[in-house]
Amino acid sequence: MAIGEEMLVLARAAQQASRLLATLSSAKKNELLLAMAIALEDGSKQLQAENEKDLTRARENKMAEAMVDRLTLTPERIREMAGGLREVAALPDPVGEITGMWLRPNGIQVGRQRIPLGVIGIIYESRPNVTADAAGLCLKSGNAVILRGGSEAIHSNRAIGAILQQVLKDLELPQAALQVVTTSDRNAVTELLQLEDQIDLIIPRGGEGLIRFVAENSKIPVIKHYKGVCHTYVDAHADLQMAEEICLNAKVQRPGVCNAMETLLIHRDCAAEFLPQIVASMEKSGVELRGCVAAQKIIPGLLTATEEDWQAEYLDLILAIRIVDSYEQAREHIETYGSLHTEVIVTDDYRLSQRFLREINSSVVMVNASSRFSDGHQLGLGAEIGISTSKLHSFGPMGLEDLTTRKFIVLGDGQVRR
Amino acid sequence: MAIGEEMLVLARAAQQASRLLATLSSAKKNELLLAMAIALEDGSKQLQAENEKDLTRARENKMAEAMVDRLTLTPERIREMAGGLREVAALPDPVGEITGMWLRPNGIQVGRQRIPLGVIGIIYESRPNVTADAAGLCLKSGNAVILRGGSEAIHSNRAIGAILQQVLKDLELPQAALQVVTTSDRNAVTELLQLEDQIDLIIPRGGEGLIRFVAENSKIPVIKHYKGVCHTYVDAHADLQMAEEICLNAKVQRPGVCNAMETLLIHRDCAAEFLPQIVASMEKSGVELRGCVAAQKIIPGLLTATEEDWQAEYLDLILAIRIVDSYEQAREHIETYGSLHTEVIVTDDYRLSQRFLREINSSVVMVNASSRFSDGHQLGLGAEIGISTSKLHSFGPMGLEDLTTRKFIVLGDGQVRR
Repeated sequence: MAIGEEMLVLARAAQQASRLLATLSSAKKNELLLAMAIALEDGSKQLQAENEKDLTRARENKMAEAMVDRLTLTPERIREMAGGLREVAALPDPVGEITGMWLRPNGIQVGRQRIPLGVIGIIYESRPNVTADAAGLCLKSGNAVILRGGSEAIHSNRAIGAILQQVLKDLELPQAALQVVTTSDRNAVTELLQLEDQIDLIIPRGGEGLIRFVAENSKIPVIKHYKGVCHTYVDAHADLQMAEEICLNAKVQRPGVCNAMETLLIHRDCAAEFLPQIVASMEKSGVELRGCVAAQKIIPGLLTATEEDWQAEYLDLILAIRIVDSYEQAREHIETYGSLHTEVIVTDDYRLSQRFLREINSSVVMVNASSRFSDGHQLGLGAEIGISTSKLHSFGPMGLEDLTTRKFIVLGDGQVRR
Repeated sequence: MAIGEEMLVLARAAQQASRLLATLSSAKKNELLLAMAIALEDGSKQLQAENEKDLTRARENKMAEAMVDRLTLTPERIREMAGGLREVAALPDPVGEITGMWLRPNGIQVGRQRIPLGVIGIIYESRPNVTADAAGLCLKSGNAVILRGGSEAIHSNRAIGAILQQVLKDLELPQAALQVVTTSDRNAVTELLQLEDQIDLIIPRGGEGLIRFVAENSKIPVIKHYKGVCHTYVDAHADLQMAEEICLNAKVQRPGVCNAMETLLIHRDCAAEFLPQIVASMEKSGVELRGCVAAQKIIPGLLTATEEDWQAEYLDLILAIRIVDSYEQAREHIETYGSLHTEVIVTDDYRLSQRFLREINSSVVMVNASSRFSDGHQLGLGAEIGISTSKLHSFGPMGLEDLTTRKFIVLGDGQVRR
């Protein structure tokens, strides 16, 4: 069978399964996820053996050590995957929720009710734990899921998929509810991305290259997350002790993730006091600092920040610093260089805090808190399937609810239109 | 200037304007819409004169009479456009609404707040009234709008655009908030559809050809509405008098629109009684009927419905009729041939009504009411910018709220992540 036809058969089976999934009770879906958690733990040895095949090949191919680490399934990571499924099972089910109902003058009642999206395709890179995590979120929200991981994790993903599919079979649910695409044919993704009549949403998870490839080749709606160039603006009326703690946390607590701060904006009225303080503590934490001309005047010898620095998502212990003349200039900087991810103001000025919340339209806008909270778990969504930095459907961290849509329901007693 | 560059300049100006629009008070936006309504009425003569140029060319080109009618701006239609703007001004403003706020264990408060999408592109065909209608909805929801109408309405659209832009100027608002693209260059649309960094959403309004062209050529998210193949299922436990009224209304009250019924499904247990009754009243209303074999046994001489009929969006006084053995068969028919638009069940069986509402995942699902209510005004959204039959972002009729997205807002007092 040609790869295009193979993907179509698979997507049609997923669509068929999605109709049943949409009608499952929460209890049944939770039973499924909990059984999957046990099956992963019981299959730990087998998973490690299959994972070892991927690791062997990775080492043969001289894969970077950080990549090999991401690829590795230890007993602890397998327990974490199982734990993730148990957490999702414990979350409230969004499906069926009626988000509003109203009576029209002619007596019909109109409501909006959450339903699953249908079939979700996840295209991801090396981490095999995504297979179980994404499957749990999609199934809990009543969606069928098609998973396409990277070729470097093919044995691991196939083994996880087989274990999870066996659980579907044991519970007499369609195995097509969860399918792992493990063909070595590199056209599989391109073919999947054409199936707009069968697949309702594509979520790419990985580097910018993968996301751009998927976005540019997909006929199916894609939820994109390119990068996180997060700003913290320390206002003239900030509590500088608080500002220091927030900035330090935002930069160094975990620099390699998208919600870490990349650029620090400081109001000129507090720069003379705050800049030496934050420079000292950042340098103590091993952060390389690059500043604007005004910052260099206060801290002689500070490296120069160029246009590229204002655009950079370092994902590393590097920070760009700019001194601004006003809140307006900070806002303009964020509008020019921001990525619509997360922006923070540190201030004790009530009016300015309200302006910042109102005027900055990034997906997450914070007052007096670390940008590191910009995450589905931290914000209270319970779990996270991804982060959207484009505005359609979802904006910001996405939880279970973001894997649903709403239909209108109408209850009449014979009304017709005049 | 090359057309690509021209569109980029225009889209950048729209994006710049959108930042201001996002912060306008509801009062200011309402003032704008009401002033636009007056300006359209005041410019009625001028609009008709410009419209006459389009009509002259249309007649020269032997445009079909129905199309010429759509293109025509009468004094009454201009008053209706103005009235539409006044209605939108009277609607509640979705922007700024906080749809939920919760406290996390560490004391941060997390909320979700509605914000405009940013810049919306509307690509439409002949009706010039879309120019004012769409502009009103986009501006009220704080979005900048780029309007590209059909070449056949170019003089009319340009005149409407000029009047509305003058109002923006008079109120000292950026004219780039509303731009009508009136170049004769046919590549303008294709170029606009590439500008994913400037334009947030594209809404095509017109025939299936236009919508497919836009969907296939756009890098920007598109809200699609291909067609409405709406079903009414008359159950064995239906009140047949009610069923007749609902079916008749759904088919004949306005057959040329997407929420008209196209296929009637009848349970076999009531077919012998109901079919002759509905055939008689449909024929009295001039409806051409096409039935399955079982229907032909009850009504000798009934035309044969083929596979094509089950897929057809007639938009005309034609109806396909199928007798089904069970609710399950009706559901299967809808899943196979439906367009996810609107489906209706007529029944007095409580359990079955609940199953239908739960199991049929079209964008609008009704019990005992005419499918003709599937419309933003009728469902109580106040106005309608379009209907989405794909599930991302919006599903079904779209009102002002659907032109917004939600950002997260976080209020802290110095929290950092541990």
